[in-house]
Amino acid sequence: MSEVCIIGVGQTPVTRRQAPSAGELGNAAIKRAIENAGVEPKAISALYLGNMTAGLLEHQQQLASLCANACGLTGVEAFTLEASCASGAAALRIGYMAVAGGFHDLVAVCGVERLSHAPRGECTRALAVAADRDETSRFGESFVGLNAALMRRYLLTHDLSPEDLAPFAITAHDNGANNPRALLRKPLDMDGYLSSRMLADPLRLMDAPPICDGAAAVILATARLARTLPARGSPRVWIRASAAASDTLTARNCIAELRLPAAERSSRRAYRQAGLDARDIDLFEAHDAFTVITALSLESSGFAARGQAVRLGKEGALALDGRLPISTMGGLKSRGHPVGATGLYQVVEAVQQLRGTAGKNQVEDARVAMTQNLGGMGATAITHVLEAA
Amino acid sequence: MSEVCIIGVGQTPVTRRQAPSAGELGNAAIKRAIENAGVEPKAISALYLGNMTAGLLEHQQQLASLCANACGLTGVEAFTLEASCASGAAALRIGYMAVAGGFHDLVAVCGVERLSHAPRGECTRALAVAADRDETSRFGESFVGLNAALMRRYLLTHDLSPEDLAPFAITAHDNGANNPRALLRKPLDMDGYLSSRMLADPLRLMDAPPICDGAAAVILATARLARTLPARGSPRVWIRASAAASDTLTARNCIAELRLPAAERSSRRAYRQAGLDARDIDLFEAHDAFTVITALSLESSGFAARGQAVRLGKEGALALDGRLPISTMGGLKSRGHPVGATGLYQVVEAVQQLRGTAGKNQVEDARVAMTQNLGGMGATAITHVLEAA
Repeated sequence: MSEVCIIGVGQTPVTRRQAPSAGELGNAAIKRAIENAGVEPKAISALYLGNMTAGLLEHQQQLASLCANACGLTGVEAFTLEASCASGAAALRIGYMAVAGGFHDLVAVCGVERLSHAPRGECTRALAVAADRDETSRFGESFVGLNAALMRRYLLTHDLSPEDLAPFAITAHDNGANNPRALLRKPLDMDGYLSSRMLADPLRLMDAPPICDGAAAVILATARLARTLPARGSPRVWIRASAAASDTLTARNCIAELRLPAAERSSRRAYRQAGLDARDIDLFEAHDAFTVITALSLESSGFAARGQAVRLGKEGALALDGRLPISTMGGLKSRGHPVGATGLYQVVEAVQQLRGTAGKNQVEDARVAMTQNLGGMGATAITHVLEAA
Repeated sequence: MSEVCIIGVGQTPVTRRQAPSAGELGNAAIKRAIENAGVEPKAISALYLGNMTAGLLEHQQQLASLCANACGLTGVEAFTLEASCASGAAALRIGYMAVAGGFHDLVAVCGVERLSHAPRGECTRALAVAADRDETSRFGESFVGLNAALMRRYLLTHDLSPEDLAPFAITAHDNGANNPRALLRKPLDMDGYLSSRMLADPLRLMDAPPICDGAAAVILATARLARTLPARGSPRVWIRASAAASDTLTARNCIAELRLPAAERSSRRAYRQAGLDARDIDLFEAHDAFTVITALSLESSGFAARGQAVRLGKEGALALDGRLPISTMGGLKSRGHPVGATGLYQVVEAVQQLRGTAGKNQVEDARVAMTQNLGGMGATAITHVLEAA
């Protein structure tokens, strides 16, 4: 199996009501990634694209072929991947297999989503397709409602208050404030958190990610090919692990057990592939879609015991100079959560850290980064480990 | 790279207004494939599922995780693939890479679609998301309209009449009549063809596939694993080639040039991988969505020169006892075209032929089969070559 190098990254700023179409967003990110990689488009032989809602919200599917054609990737293998909010990392997982397995030497992977043009209700319904229709969405349950139920139970079970979860959001906003591509570039403090609008008790606006649009992309190459190209940013960044797992779509189990079994499986597989454990991770791009999900993701990935993730926040361990920086460019909370693009934003940002090009948000001596992208209430979990070498 | 064996196949009958949900259809096909393979569900480590419209028409996505969980494939890697009508073969292509590349030893691949419950207009609009919204679907163009334009130009350019295309439909119905899982089990003759309703001049109902529901699945294994299992049907069936290509989503090029460049690329790649050429193919499961598309697919795959595919029909070469049987179990025209499932129906049927279990439709001495699944007006083309050995 070939080692897989990330030789180029590209991203659009995360915005609202500015993007003309999902296709054009995707094109912009792919073109930037190709330029960053310094390769000719015609040398690329596949495009894997993660997207969740383009069919529902702008009546356009077969987006991978559409973008491939628009970006000069004429005739390549082009597929769209869907695993709800984990669609982006699913595309990366396939891109990784295609290169590591020897099927392609050079591939493009993109995640793209455009949500903000849709009326709020339509958008909420479009996102609800990630839940089991028979058990949840047909009764009008939204992910905000489900996460509120999860948060309530997490706080009760572990004898915590919303203030205990606030540091996840505050850390994200601290970091996002310095990311020129983040949507919400304003710091957040405890007062701001506690005074934010209640969406569904106990979940407030500042526990939740914003509706937004964006696209991010990477170019992957075999080790052999990567070594013939000038390194963009030094050192080069390699994918050391790529691992996916699934679970039931119903939110019931997650709420009852306060666990994310797919995230547990996926991170366990990733550690095994990389030959590492949680202590080796220098930074973690968490799927901080809701503050309670950040806690469960940290616990599922071996960074904290059950019910203990909030301690990391209180101790300052999650800040850029802490022992496990998370959401280093703002995370889903502040940079934004364009759902099918999120998995690729996480990876592009991790690459910025490992290349030492993260600007004001640079984590010192970052060598190993982990990204975790979740779909639904943990019905999909995909973990990647990246290493600079 | 490991050789990849198809160790199990499963399919539901193609029906209308009977299937309760896309998820349950998918589950039925997957369970049958697992049973046919004679393996334990828990030995399977991934599910790749092709689907196009479940988000639009039944508000359910993340279908791969949903089906994995319902079929006892607990915790597996599970992704949904979308490449419009080629979604099924896209899922197979990924399953092939996962096994051949050494990422999984045993995977399930499923294609599923449920269309017939939706009001006709809604269904037409849902299928139109495969076209370039900016160029076609936003002006109300449907695939019937686009294929009528293509058919008109094909007939004019090559000085043909609709009667010349009729044999593709008649062959499909002849074969579908004996397939217990086909939707339209009635033979068709030239009178029936010519008297069928005109949908968009010159395209008649009998040039087009029916709206319907269905699911088909296969289980793939490494050569090493396959050889430890009792062969189901003898001999075993192997994937000798798996090749995808893309093209522009606009129908304009296809209509102007009367070619399917993605099908040309994809079949060329497939022949090269398999070390075969068109003369080695014993049967061809064509993407006979519209009669004119059958013609272009045959021409793109090297079975006929441009404008000459209709001769194959006239000569009887496409019948079960001809030199290139197509649509051997009814094809998209008679078995039915549940879009995201079609690519897997083609493969399941090819396996039936190669195993010698195709009943009344058995092609004698079938050893090498080719399947070709198209998305949109040839914006995606995926070709597989299967061999019994």
